Amino acid sequence: MNLKDYIASIPDYPTKGVIFRDISPLMEDGKAYREATNQIVDYAKEKKIDMIVGPEARGFIIGCPVAYELGIGFAPARKKGKLPRETVEVDYALEYGHATLTIHKDAIKPGQRVLICDDLLATGGTIAATIELVEKLGGIVVGCAFLVELADLKGRDKIKGYDILALMEF
Amino acid sequence: MNLKDYIASIPDYPTKGVIFRDISPLMEDGKAYREATNQIVDYAKEKKIDMIVGPEARGFIIGCPVAYELGIGFAPARKKGKLPRETVEVDYALEYGHATLTIHKDAIKPGQRVLICDDLLATGGTIAATIELVEKLGGIVVGCAFLVELADLKGRDKIKGYDILALMEF
Repeated sequence: MNLKDYIASIPDYPTKGVIFRDISPLMEDGKAYREATNQIVDYAKEKKIDMIVGPEARGFIIGCPVAYELGIGFAPARKKGKLPRETVEVDYALEYGHATLTIHKDAIKPGQRVLICDDLLATGGTIAATIELVEKLGGIVVGCAFLVELADLKGRDKIKGYDILALMEF
Repeated sequence: MNLKDYIASIPDYPTKGVIFRDISPLMEDGKAYREATNQIVDYAKEKKIDMIVGPEARGFIIGCPVAYELGIGFAPARKKGKLPRETVEVDYALEYGHATLTIHKDAIKPGQRVLICDDLLATGGTIAATIELVEKLGGIVVGCAFLVELADLKGRDKIKGYDILALMEF
């Protein structure tokens, strides 16, 4: 199975000149979704992880079945105002303006080994912020797993020193 | 295992007089998350379903591991503007104002048997809109599964005739 067959490429979305890589055909296909998840599960098993963290909202789609299969917990990293209990937060730059990502203070215990999951590694801004959240809580980021890496955007440069799994590259 | 032990109750959130039921301690605990998911999987197996649909964003956390375990697809129902390909949409009323929920046109094939998953059945507005989306595409909603039902808010009345599984009631 070639997972790339399940990624839709949408020209000029969301703005002219950008090709948007849409993972939804993959998750809408039971076999492809299971295969992609299992590849991340295999990677996670080598890393001996305690928790999965995923940024909202597509990070939930990637990270949650991995957590389930491993029998470990899943902690969401969400935009400010979405989590009801005490949080830590990180501000990060977007192309225009900035955003704040938060995580519950009790989501990660110090020393826990964490795998961060998201659909796409693009410029790396969201993942860098998610790493910072985990580390604020004393967690150890042992890897970052993505379905797709957009290599031209050099997201890897923003998270140097961290182990990266990307199932597909465009 | 009593799943209720993993639901945090937050008084006066988001507004005074409301007790917010927070599912995040459950999903952050590997055993509780797996137990809750397996209860939904058992229900889904009886229903012989083809697809899971979950409204953003906590519906992803509940529905995705169920889809993975059954080896079937997951289709997200998202707020307008979040899905990149052709969609159908449904407007629905909120306490103040209204919202629009969308789903990709090719997410469900006519005749497919669909289970809708979300964290919480409250007033039922989001779930009624999600049901309408699935039916617009010709899907058959064979059940709606929730972690928590807030019985006082009478969400069941809004989705009469549909089979409901709620793992906990408050």
